[in-house]
Amino acid sequence: MKYGFPGMSNIRSQRDFVLSYDQRNRVPYWVFEHLTPESIKYSEGVDRSKCDFFEDKSIHEFFRSTNKDYSGSGFDRGHMAAAGNHKACQQFVDETFVLSNIAPQVGVGFNRNSWNRLEKHVRKMLRVYPNVYICTGPLYLPRREADGKTYVKYQVIGANSVAVPTHFFKIVVADDGKGRLDMESYVMPNQPIDDSTPLHSFQVPPEAIEKASGFLFYNAIPRSKVSSINGRKSTWV
Amino acid sequence: MKYGFPGMSNIRSQRDFVLSYDQRNRVPYWVFEHLTPESIKYSEGVDRSKCDFFEDKSIHEFFRSTNKDYSGSGFDRGHMAAAGNHKACQQFVDETFVLSNIAPQVGVGFNRNSWNRLEKHVRKMLRVYPNVYICTGPLYLPRREADGKTYVKYQVIGANSVAVPTHFFKIVVADDGKGRLDMESYVMPNQPIDDSTPLHSFQVPPEAIEKASGFLFYNAIPRSKVSSINGRKSTWV
Repeated sequence: MKYGFPGMSNIRSQRDFVLSYDQRNRVPYWVFEHLTPESIKYSEGVDRSKCDFFEDKSIHEFFRSTNKDYSGSGFDRGHMAAAGNHKACQQFVDETFVLSNIAPQVGVGFNRNSWNRLEKHVRKMLRVYPNVYICTGPLYLPRREADGKTYVKYQVIGANSVAVPTHFFKIVVADDGKGRLDMESYVMPNQPIDDSTPLHSFQVPPEAIEKASGFLFYNAIPRSKVSSINGRKSTWV
Repeated sequence: MKYGFPGMSNIRSQRDFVLSYDQRNRVPYWVFEHLTPESIKYSEGVDRSKCDFFEDKSIHEFFRSTNKDYSGSGFDRGHMAAAGNHKACQQFVDETFVLSNIAPQVGVGFNRNSWNRLEKHVRKMLRVYPNVYICTGPLYLPRREADGKTYVKYQVIGANSVAVPTHFFKIVVADDGKGRLDMESYVMPNQPIDDSTPLHSFQVPPEAIEKASGFLFYNAIPRSKVSSINGRKSTWV
């Protein structure tokens, strides 16, 4: 977390990622990962199919999401810290299945498609950069309605009223180890997205995510030290 | 704050109250006051009409509400720590006008009527109790819609998207100084309410407020030590 904590609410440290939990919405505020080429390497025997989603008993029962909340809701249990980023060790991938790392995501067309494309894209950055830092989380974006007023509206599911975010963000800082930092920041709507939509079309200025989420990200890095933000020099999209 | 902090996010201490600020919604999470018969006494010369609402410059500008956000919105700038509770000193009442203590409230029928009745009721408790602790804040309650699904929906106002809460809560602990603690907890919808509606009809179990807000209140007091909760023994409603 050398680039700063976005906030200090209900922090939970797993071995391979750190999250802050939103007790009102029963999903994370943000989840922070640090990946290296070694950390994402697949170790033999690690098997995602052995993983079960499980409740985070460290969260007070008033605020804890459960598998039952998601069951029959029509939404996937979407990972914020992606299971695919933590295959070096069975325990690491297991821990990504804690429900405090999960938010309701549209399955077909989102979690299983374009959101997954974005996760893969971030892992590919490790072919170029030795260190990649990722902050991921939900958004609840306002929308103007027919009455001319602007509203935030999102569904909640299950007995514990787990919030279904309208969008998800991902802000990535890639460190080339020689003092160069490149930043990419994305917002995707939690809805089916055509697989042919290029990822860069979801890029937004990081400040837009900061204003919408209520957090400052990577605030230990002066923005002037970042060599590119969603920059055209990036060659991997 | 001897009865516990509900949370530690963005705490701001004024001289006569403490608040936690919700950077995403640009309103408080909760505001905590400790009143005594002395602290609510009016001191000569203290004049509310001298007060102006002012921005909280300690909040990052991305998350700070401004007078312009409220202007023309149709909503009052509603105090969480009530101005009327802090008339012992001009500086104290001035500080209740900081916009981090404010949330958009319906004016006629709510802020200026039933919500004000509730504030007055709490002050009247000081005729009986030497110490009254108040925690006040916004709620965004889910509602089932015609499609059978449940949604959280609330308006946002101004360039900074200040959230208009659907409801407000107030949880009061009154200490008789002899070991007796009486608790009252209220939820009121942010809409015009008939002046004849009795205040006790807005009483709800404190746990309902905890689940909806995402905070545990007065959690340093074992609930078993509380002599009554919204109890019928209360004679002042």
